[in-house]
Formats: sequence, structure tokens, C-alpha cells
Amino acid sequence: MKYNFINTPRIGIIGGGQLAKMTAISAMKYGCEIVILEKSKKSPSENLAAEMIYGDWDDPDNLLELANKVDVVTLENEFVDANSLKVLEGEGHTLYPSSKTIDLVQDKLNQKRTLNNAGIPVMTFTEIESREDIIRHAKELSWPIILKARRNAYDGKGNSTLHSEEDIDSAWIKLNGKKQKLYIEDFCDFKSELATMITRDINGKIVTYPVVESIQKNHICHIVRAPANINNEISKKALDLSIKAVKAIDGIGTIGVEMFCTKDNEIIVNEMAPRVHNSGHYTIEACETSQFENHVRAILGLPLGSTRMIAPAAVMINILGNREGNGFPTGIEKALAINGAHVHVYGKTTTNIGRKMGHVTALGSSIAEAENVAIEAAASISFGKQK
Amino acid sequence: MKYNFINTPRIGIIGGGQLAKMTAISAMKYGCEIVILEKSKKSPSENLAAEMIYGDWDDPDNLLELANKVDVVTLENEFVDANSLKVLEGEGHTLYPSSKTIDLVQDKLNQKRTLNNAGIPVMTFTEIESREDIIRHAKELSWPIILKARRNAYDGKGNSTLHSEEDIDSAWIKLNGKKQKLYIEDFCDFKSELATMITRDINGKIVTYPVVESIQKNHICHIVRAPANINNEISKKALDLSIKAVKAIDGIGTIGVEMFCTKDNEIIVNEMAPRVHNSGHYTIEACETSQFENHVRAILGLPLGSTRMIAPAAVMINILGNREGNGFPTGIEKALAINGAHVHVYGKTTTNIGRKMGHVTALGSSIAEAENVAIEAAASISFGKQK
Repeated sequence: MKYNFINTPRIGIIGGGQLAKMTAISAMKYGCEIVILEKSKKSPSENLAAEMIYGDWDDPDNLLELANKVDVVTLENEFVDANSLKVLEGEGHTLYPSSKTIDLVQDKLNQKRTLNNAGIPVMTFTEIESREDIIRHAKELSWPIILKARRNAYDGKGNSTLHSEEDIDSAWIKLNGKKQKLYIEDFCDFKSELATMITRDINGKIVTYPVVESIQKNHICHIVRAPANINNEISKKALDLSIKAVKAIDGIGTIGVEMFCTKDNEIIVNEMAPRVHNSGHYTIEACETSQFENHVRAILGLPLGSTRMIAPAAVMINILGNREGNGFPTGIEKALAINGAHVHVYGKTTTNIGRKMGHVTALGSSIAEAENVAIEAAASISFGKQK
Repeated sequence: MKYNFINTPRIGIIGGGQLAKMTAISAMKYGCEIVILEKSKKSPSENLAAEMIYGDWDDPDNLLELANKVDVVTLENEFVDANSLKVLEGEGHTLYPSSKTIDLVQDKLNQKRTLNNAGIPVMTFTEIESREDIIRHAKELSWPIILKARRNAYDGKGNSTLHSEEDIDSAWIKLNGKKQKLYIEDFCDFKSELATMITRDINGKIVTYPVVESIQKNHICHIVRAPANINNEISKKALDLSIKAVKAIDGIGTIGVEMFCTKDNEIIVNEMAPRVHNSGHYTIEACETSQFENHVRAILGLPLGSTRMIAPAAVMINILGNREGNGFPTGIEKALAINGAHVHVYGKTTTNIGRKMGHVTALGSSIAEAENVAIEAAASISFGKQK
């Protein structure tokens, strides 16, 4: 596809969460219109859509209804069934990333195989079908190992670390091994977790964002430090592998690559997200062109923009729900009183424990400077006020 | 008002143009909802509103309908009848800026009187009621003089420069002197036109944006250079006068002040806009907190953000329609190929000559550097493609 619209481009987004919201804002800057397919009412992106379609996004009829209203379809999560997405392409609709990319990524075992076949370092992994399989393979891998769901896992949901045979039964039940397909992976005793966002356009042109360090808390992205405190050699290695990984899945649009940096400074690709990603939120304020804007450019066939950081350092901190309740933020007036805090509230109507409700980004002349601001601002805001 | 919301704040905006659109985007970042009162369908802000009300904004019933749906009402133009706005306040609704501010500004003769009474330098002005009045006063002022409509004038509409008595008749007809109230003003042979944006919150706290130079073309803002190429003394004088002017009209929210800098480096206040303003668009990319974001903060009772520029220089160039036609931009793919060009397309469905359709902002280490990028990008885009 080349950019050859003769009227307002309409972009269809599958999913209406905060990633869709931030993508929609970027698209509107270019005068585009957005149509959203979302399961529930009152999603964060609802008020940005020219039109909402409510329904199951795995249902090809809903996907076709969306596609028929727009010029190009994209998605904000990788859980949409790849076979349903194939229907869109079969009917001649434009989908970026493609159903093939989603297919290669949404089953994590397939994803690992794809990366491994492309010569990209990943942790040793094995398909398993039973508890006995786990015990057998654990002997080869050595404890601890990680038991993972092949599909629909995010933010640590669907992962369980096994330290010995004794952990198997409870993990098997937790991950519903009877019904869900699982696999195991060697545990990585990493020095740090790195991530980068890559945008690849429809002609294969690639821009890379800086390699960042991502600090997880309870398996959920908590802090992102941009750039990561690594030397040029490691940074280059991480970017080269990320580019290779994006090509391996034929990704188009903005794609997230999560990596481990081992104690020997080896880079191991952990997981890919074929979409804009939490570890790239800092790009809104910190880069000349955000991950969202470049995603929009990529899927419309527009030239990609510079990913250069406009400050020496940026730190992003997620604000998670810490109880059930109202999604309204308490303390935003305190957060905004902190000089340099860029506060984002997603507008979710309800919160619960661990739910991503907003984030704060701060720029600075050093990571420490930015992080102090971001920590203070994020700590000022809470969700789930008792009524 | 203090920020003490316990649920999603809803902001009502009178008018749905590009200023409402950019304000709405800033408000959504904080999770707010927007309701818009607008005359016509398919306005630039339409897809950002949780709710649209269509109707004449001078009609108190429409204003009340809007106010009843929101926590605070603001506006994107100063042409809403101040007497109609008074009804909102009379019914206990929150309106920023107030009807009093709008009253002091929307009749330009009143505005001049207000500024003059506050000791702020303005060009000599006089109320007139007839062609004979013009001739009589012109003798005191010396030609050329400017004949101006007191109300509803913008982008040079409603102004006419008179070089001699011979110009009076045609200007009188052009400005509809029979029906419209007019006034005359001495012509200012300025060295440059300056502007600044001021945000004043509900507690009277003020932040000022840098003084910028504004280059007009056919009375329409064409280029904005931030900061203006003036020394600190002139800059301070301009900021001090702007603050005084904002206080004189008791402005709340973001307010634009347009000034002349004379050949003797005197600062004369030309016109005020009690709202976000075209000469502050550059703040979206160039300042830590944009004029739009600070407006939202001000009217919600949130702390104001830093107005510091994040680059040494920024240049904004308007993209105007140059014929009648479709509002779709041609050439955006060329503009985005230019490194550093931030392109904004307002999403108007139709264009005509001189209509503001979009703008480009570029940052740089110098005005010249930024201006080259902005000029090239803006020149790549045109509206009104023949079908």
C-alpha cells in the first residue's frame, strides 16, 4: 500500500483500551477518523471513535463489519484469533499487522519456534502435554523452569515458576492445564530486562526506538527507563536482534520486543508484542515521533518519523489499581503540581488490583532526575476511591 | 473553584473548531469527557466529544443545555454573546472565562477602553457613528487610519485601512457601516508583531509563555516564531503588559495577547483573545505544557504546568485553504517525509480561500533552522483538491 487516499482515511482498531486511545489521538492529528471494535461499553477510546462496534473480536462477522467501515484495520492486542483475522484478508481488506504475524505471535510456543528458527537467541523451550512431560523435561533444563500458557497470557497471567516437582500440581491447576495448551521454558536469571519498539512500514523500512530498561513488579511493567544503562555494543546487539525478530514475524506497524540481558551481557528475546506497547509510552513526550504516531504512519503508508529522544533521559511509571472500585483518579492535583510530570489517565470506569489505569512520564537530564519526578507523581495518584 | 471532582470531570466547549479539538485532546489525557455546542455538523472536534449539541451558541437555551451536562463551560471563540453567557452564571453554572471577561473583549471598542483605562498602551481609538465622524477624527489622527467593526471580526475580516477620505465610502460599505457598529484606530507603523499566551488560574496564579513574533499575511496569522528575536528588556515589557492586560479583563484560562513593537521599541497592545490562540499552537510540541493543557488545568482548578520551551526555537506555519473544495489534505506524505515537521490536519470537511485547515510546527536549534523545515513541510500540503 502506498499513501494514496483521496478522502479522510478511516482506521479500524480492534480493541478499545488505552493503546487504542493513544493511537487514535495520534491519528486524529492527521485528520483521520477512527472506528473501534470493542467488547464492552465505556472503554478508554470510546469518545475518540467516529463509530463504535460492540462485540466479540474473534467473531469474523464483527471483524468484517469493522473492516467494511474503514480503509485499514489494526489492533491493540494480539489475542484476536488469527484465523478470524484471515477472513478479513480473504475478503480483500487491509490489515496491519497481518493475520500471519498475529498467528506467529499469539501462540507463544509458535512465537518461540519462529524466533529460534530465525537464529534469534531465546530461552530453551519445549512443548508439553502432561505433568509427566514437565518432569521429564525439567531434568534436562534444571529447576527452576517456567510453565506458561501458549495463548491469551499477559502481565504475568498465564505464567508460573516451578522450583521443583512439588510446584507442578498447583501450577497445573492454576493454568488450567487440562484445557489450556501449555509449554515450559528455562528460567532466565537475567541481569536486566530490556525492551525496544520497532516500527516497520509496508515497504519494509524500519525505524528503531532506543533500548529501554523495564522493571517489572509482579510480572507487570512498572518502570521504564529510557535509554537503558547499557553500553553501545549491547544496545546495538539488542537493536539488531529486535530488527531480526520483527522481520521474522513479518511485522508491520509498531512492534514491541522484550528481552533479557544476562549476567554475561548476552541478549535473549523473551517476548514480542505485535502492536504498540507499554514500554513505549515514554515516546509520547520523549521522542520526536511517538510509537503511536509512527504506527499510524506505517499502516497508512506515510513516511516514518524520527525516533530521536528530545531529552537525555525519560522515565515512565505505570499507575496500577490497588483495589476494586471507581476508575476515577484521586490525587491528580498533587501529581500535576510536580514540575515535569506528564500525567496520563486512561479513563477506565472501574479499577481492580493490578489494572493499568494510567501512567506518568518525566523527562530529565539523567534517569535519576526523571525517575524522582515520575515516582513522586505516580505515587500521588490512586484509583478505586471508596465511595 | 478548587479541584475537588469525585467523578470524571466533564468540560463543555462552546464551538467545535480546531481550538476545541486541541483542547479536547489535552483534556482526554486527564481522563476528562467533552461536550461540544457547535452550529454545524462534522466539525473538527466532533469525534472527540462524548456528546454533541448542535445549535446557535447565542441562544441561552442551547448554552444551558450544554452547561447542564458538564462541570465547567469554556469557549473557543469570543463571539458568543456575553449577555447569553450571563444566563449560565445566573443559573449557577461555572464558566471560564467569565461572561464579564467576554463582555470586555468581544466589543473591540470596549476592549480598547478597558486596556486604556488600565494604563496599557493602545493605539489611539475613537468611537464613530457616521462617515462624517471618520473625516473629523482623521484630521486629529492623521492618515492612514483603520476602520474596524466593533464585533465579530477576525483574521482581518471587519478591518479596512483608509489612506484618505476617498477610501471611506467603499470601506463603509464593505464593513456595512449602516448596520454594524464601527470605530476607528490610528494606524501603527510597527516594526514587528508580537504575541504571548498567558494562562491564569482561578486563584489568580499566572504562567506566561515566551513572547513570539507573528508574521501576518493578508491579516491572517501566517508564521509564528518562538521566541521572538527581541532583547530581554523588550520581552519583559511585553510580558508585563500582557499580564496587566489579562488582569484588566479578569481573564481565566489561557488568553492570547497580540502586540505591536514600534520602531522605538515601544510595546502597544493590539488585541486580546480570551481563549487559546493560533499564536500558541507551537506550544504543543515546543513547551513542556501546551497552551491547551494549561487551559484545561486552569479551568478545572488543577496546578498550572511549566511553559518552558524544550528546544531553543520553534516555528509554526499555518496551512490555509487556497480555493474552495474538499477539506482533505493533498501532499501530507511529502510533508511527513521532512524530518522534524509536526503536521496537524484539523479535519474540516470543506475548505475555502484563507480558511485555517492545518498547521506545521518544527523545532530547531535556531529560528532559521526550524523555519526552513516548517516552510518546506507546509508548502507540501494543499487543500481543496479538484475532484
